[in-house]
Amino acid sequence: MATVAEPTAVMDQTVIHPPKRLLYGPGPGQVHPRVYQAMAQPIVGHLDAYFFQISNEIQQLLRKVFGTKNEMTFLISATGSGGMETAISNFVTPGTKVASFGNGYFCDRQAEMARRHGGNVVRLEKPWGEVFSDEEAANFIHLEKPQVVTYVHAETSSGALQKGDAICKAAHEVGALVVADCVTSLGALPVEIDKTGIDIAYSCSQKGLSCPPGLAPLTVSPRALEHLKSRTTPNSSWYFDISLIADYLVHSHRYHHTASATMFYALREGLALIDEEGLEKRWERHHKAHLEFVKKVETLGLEMHVPSPANRIWNLNTVKVPQGVDDAKVRATLLKEEGIEIAGGFGPLAGKIFRVGLMGPLATSESVHHFMHCFESALRGAGYKGRIG
Amino acid sequence: MATVAEPTAVMDQTVIHPPKRLLYGPGPGQVHPRVYQAMAQPIVGHLDAYFFQISNEIQQLLRKVFGTKNEMTFLISATGSGGMETAISNFVTPGTKVASFGNGYFCDRQAEMARRHGGNVVRLEKPWGEVFSDEEAANFIHLEKPQVVTYVHAETSSGALQKGDAICKAAHEVGALVVADCVTSLGALPVEIDKTGIDIAYSCSQKGLSCPPGLAPLTVSPRALEHLKSRTTPNSSWYFDISLIADYLVHSHRYHHTASATMFYALREGLALIDEEGLEKRWERHHKAHLEFVKKVETLGLEMHVPSPANRIWNLNTVKVPQGVDDAKVRATLLKEEGIEIAGGFGPLAGKIFRVGLMGPLATSESVHHFMHCFESALRGAGYKGRIG
Repeated sequence: MATVAEPTAVMDQTVIHPPKRLLYGPGPGQVHPRVYQAMAQPIVGHLDAYFFQISNEIQQLLRKVFGTKNEMTFLISATGSGGMETAISNFVTPGTKVASFGNGYFCDRQAEMARRHGGNVVRLEKPWGEVFSDEEAANFIHLEKPQVVTYVHAETSSGALQKGDAICKAAHEVGALVVADCVTSLGALPVEIDKTGIDIAYSCSQKGLSCPPGLAPLTVSPRALEHLKSRTTPNSSWYFDISLIADYLVHSHRYHHTASATMFYALREGLALIDEEGLEKRWERHHKAHLEFVKKVETLGLEMHVPSPANRIWNLNTVKVPQGVDDAKVRATLLKEEGIEIAGGFGPLAGKIFRVGLMGPLATSESVHHFMHCFESALRGAGYKGRIG
Repeated sequence: MATVAEPTAVMDQTVIHPPKRLLYGPGPGQVHPRVYQAMAQPIVGHLDAYFFQISNEIQQLLRKVFGTKNEMTFLISATGSGGMETAISNFVTPGTKVASFGNGYFCDRQAEMARRHGGNVVRLEKPWGEVFSDEEAANFIHLEKPQVVTYVHAETSSGALQKGDAICKAAHEVGALVVADCVTSLGALPVEIDKTGIDIAYSCSQKGLSCPPGLAPLTVSPRALEHLKSRTTPNSSWYFDISLIADYLVHSHRYHHTASATMFYALREGLALIDEEGLEKRWERHHKAHLEFVKKVETLGLEMHVPSPANRIWNLNTVKVPQGVDDAKVRATLLKEEGIEIAGGFGPLAGKIFRVGLMGPLATSESVHHFMHCFESALRGAGYKGRIG
């Protein structure tokens, strides 16, 4: 670059000076320092051989994390909600019957997107925080005989983990495709796409993968691709058209859109970190941090929102706001005093729960201890008189 | 972060080691070093007060660069093509009559997206590299009386700059909205949304704004918003629904999707650099580099693809491939010997043109000299016998 002068008028220092934050919310989670290092590397073009090398490595590593052999496993150039829209828009056409399991905010979003794409949506609903039993799932699907089934694996709005095996089994018995939202679970706990029988799954970059937001991992089964081929009308979304994206990222490397080298670097790095640590060890680390958190919370006299331990998301914990405590005050104190971000509940859970993420670099014992120390102090400051932790 | 330990198994160094590149292609262009510095700053949450501060500053600076007073001026969390889909999907509903000016690849893409959203698309076509005169534009629009008009301000596939004044005037006479693609022009040459009369315009982050790809600036006029209010069916795209995005980024800061703090930092920095240099000075710098480039090219006995100097894009130059020269060989030599990326033509211009970007940090005399030195050498190596430069 010696031959290329910069304009001289500009100063040397960035104008970006963010406050210090420890991201204990439902996501984005704390980004690993190596990911920042990766993003500081100079970009290459979106058709550069090095770009495709990185993209291919990402695809291989994503298959491992997703637990799939699906060739169609790649990154969508949008956030997790863009991944959701990719999943829905390619497989829901006007008149498609969609059976939607509804037990949280992101289930509702799946249903809303399906309706916008002309889907005939039928719903089975439960309060936020509860999950569907195998029998309930099978009965609903056998009764409705849908073409597409949607559910959310890890509901960020409630903290509930929905198992997919019975859903997938019943869906396949009636010939339906299964779309699973793995936005919060991927990289932090087992998703096991192939073993579960999920046809289409999407996730995000900023939770279990410890990268900034901006990209959505997606995986599509060969069975789903067969369905895609039988579409008679094109996806109304050109940007999220899986066939065009696959042509760019997997098959011919033909230009579709200008994917971001920087964000691909981030994901490559995040996935390398997972691979170096070992996927099962990483899951274990998140599980251990979760169990430590629950124990601490209960010692403090607090209650988890999701009653059964088996139905709790490891990396996103929901804790009931104790009676008489103003949750907004607790959150404000944590942010102001400690730079700690957590989230409250919303919708039917507004004011009723705290949502605490223990993701990536923050899924450690030290991190749980630090958080609980600050959390207890903020709770006491807001008038909490429960057991002494 | 002293209290939070990292997993010990991981190594300290990034796995990302890109080859050295000077990005003289049609984009992404060279990223300013301060933008990398900005992206290395720790993220905050997508609902953090600091995130909205940055987002608001971006909106203010974008208004300046777009030349608009439109309140609805913000970033879409997708690449430039996602910006295009936002513009089309919000304003084209089934049956909408769309008049599409077609003189290049991205015009075709606008028409394709409009068709996918049910638009009744009529086209006025010209060879790639030509532009529409004021009279042609007015006649077409008055004849067709469309509801939406689409054109591309700076056609990256051909190097042609299409003026919008006559298009906008005629469109407004028949009550139509105008969608303009400013992907390549924004930040490098005048776009003047309000003065021209454009209703909806979109761009990208990786060309005139000198950031990595990943975000799409968008601006929407109050007139277009009025039309939006009269929609009777929702946009099939939830992700690109302007009303929901505006609610998140402009009005109530209500959660829509998880926007990327990192990418917003990048845009904030890129726009700060433009503001510090001064917008008109920046345009002038791009114009000067362009004129120097054209002079050098002609001295070498080469010809620009766009005949009239007034119709050439300043930051994306198209040069005819001289007879007997294999353009792929020239491009491969530049990449291999100098790490210089340029692009060839495609579609009807495949093998016929080189596409050379002079954007952001590379729009300087030194950069033109360096590029032309390498370009001439690569041309000679591919058998070019033209004038000695």
